[in-house]
Amino acid sequence: MPQQVQNTQAMQTWKLTLAYDGTDFHGWQVQPGERTVQGELQSALGRVVGESPLPQGSGRTDAGVHALGQVASFSLQAHIPPANLQRALNRTIPASIRVIEAAVVPDTFHARHSALAKTYEYRVLLTEPGCDRICPPFLARYVYAYSWRVNLAALRNTAQAFVGEHDFRSFAATDPDLSTRTADSDDGSPDQTEPRTAIRTIYSSTWEEQPHEAGDLLVYRVRGNGFLHHMVRNLVGTMLDVGRGYMHIEDIPRIFSALSRDAAGPTAPARGLFLHSVEYD
Amino acid sequence: MPQQVQNTQAMQTWKLTLAYDGTDFHGWQVQPGERTVQGELQSALGRVVGESPLPQGSGRTDAGVHALGQVASFSLQAHIPPANLQRALNRTIPASIRVIEAAVVPDTFHARHSALAKTYEYRVLLTEPGCDRICPPFLARYVYAYSWRVNLAALRNTAQAFVGEHDFRSFAATDPDLSTRTADSDDGSPDQTEPRTAIRTIYSSTWEEQPHEAGDLLVYRVRGNGFLHHMVRNLVGTMLDVGRGYMHIEDIPRIFSALSRDAAGPTAPARGLFLHSVEYD
Repeated sequence: MPQQVQNTQAMQTWKLTLAYDGTDFHGWQVQPGERTVQGELQSALGRVVGESPLPQGSGRTDAGVHALGQVASFSLQAHIPPANLQRALNRTIPASIRVIEAAVVPDTFHARHSALAKTYEYRVLLTEPGCDRICPPFLARYVYAYSWRVNLAALRNTAQAFVGEHDFRSFAATDPDLSTRTADSDDGSPDQTEPRTAIRTIYSSTWEEQPHEAGDLLVYRVRGNGFLHHMVRNLVGTMLDVGRGYMHIEDIPRIFSALSRDAAGPTAPARGLFLHSVEYD
Repeated sequence: MPQQVQNTQAMQTWKLTLAYDGTDFHGWQVQPGERTVQGELQSALGRVVGESPLPQGSGRTDAGVHALGQVASFSLQAHIPPANLQRALNRTIPASIRVIEAAVVPDTFHARHSALAKTYEYRVLLTEPGCDRICPPFLARYVYAYSWRVNLAALRNTAQAFVGEHDFRSFAATDPDLSTRTADSDDGSPDQTEPRTAIRTIYSSTWEEQPHEAGDLLVYRVRGNGFLHHMVRNLVGTMLDVGRGYMHIEDIPRIFSALSRDAAGPTAPARGLFLHSVEYD
């Protein structure tokens, strides 16, 4: 008797950890007439539980951006064993979204507000200007196939220059609502409870070569207390410009102090970006 | 002056080796109003060379079936260095199709008629009925996520039973035009030049466990002189039924002699199937 259950039991707060292939979605956030991860999850909850809370993500991901460990929170009146909710959701959502963990958490938990740190990964496959190395069709959705020759040491040095507390305005998307629209703000409308600042702290920022049968796969991993809209993709685009010699590491201080998107390098494509994990207390 | 070139030079026969992610295509073969690999290739040739021959494949692949080494042949009047044609096609076709080799070949070459043997691979990811192991969203397009417990020795023994010359009618799709519509017949219409027989020879048929971070990946590899429509998927569906104990290896001779699709196991999903390679003289 779900009706009765709903009337007598306290709401429970849920935390879901999600992996998804972002290619076929219009990003995380619900948008009218578009297929989004948040929307698929909300309607799956409706089918499975009969309640349709809007899951709050740790942050938005743009169209084409993937997740290995996105976190979402919401409340349900129905009490369900976590493994059962996980299994039922995985049966009803598309195979391109998987619930990798479901847990009941304290009511104070909020996927965005409670997040202490986030890690993103960006994957670059080095191809060649000719056709000697071709990005395999099975990787095309998940890497940025890059055909310039790249100096890995220059990438690594530039990555180090981002570590610490900086105003990252030069690396933020020039949205109309730039100062409030950040990757950490879960909805499109300005969130008055968050400071309108572009200051973020990056804890680590590294490049690693991963062996791959398709060729040289370079994986950038960045961990910080928050990220502005497009920030990781703009950091990567700038580092790649340095890596191929089009910009220089000495330009980085100038880019920071310009406080203008025009100063930095191009925005690397969404397809190489993965929200790796979100950390909580 | 391409016009002049076309009038004075002999036609050249081309062989392309192609890899593709079949998920977003309605199979290989051109169909009105549908996106197909053959159609994409034909229109790319038109854009690149100004000639639009219909590329002949070594055989059709169904919607959702992938290729690591499909082969296509066609003739062009324009004479182009192979590396240039490869590069130009790869710039204009979708990233989900890649030309991995382009070559000018003797005029007697035909991708289907000249084929001596073909190898297919089928990938099964063993998951679990519960949620302990989940098919990652990045693999969902490329494996059959199978949640029954499977006996690998039984799979291997059954695979051996298919080796040799057999009438594979029981493992062929029950199409209206069953006797002529084979995976080796490149067009939908009956090809009167080919014998209407379901007799094929399988040279090797093996299962291999491949280590994979997502869990147990079982890869079936089958090499033969030809394959009927749905044949590999029906062999796999039957082997998996044996592997989970629902059928037995002793049933295989009975299935062969029934000469009826009803006798064999289910058709495994397209997404796990890859045309691995095609062999020529």
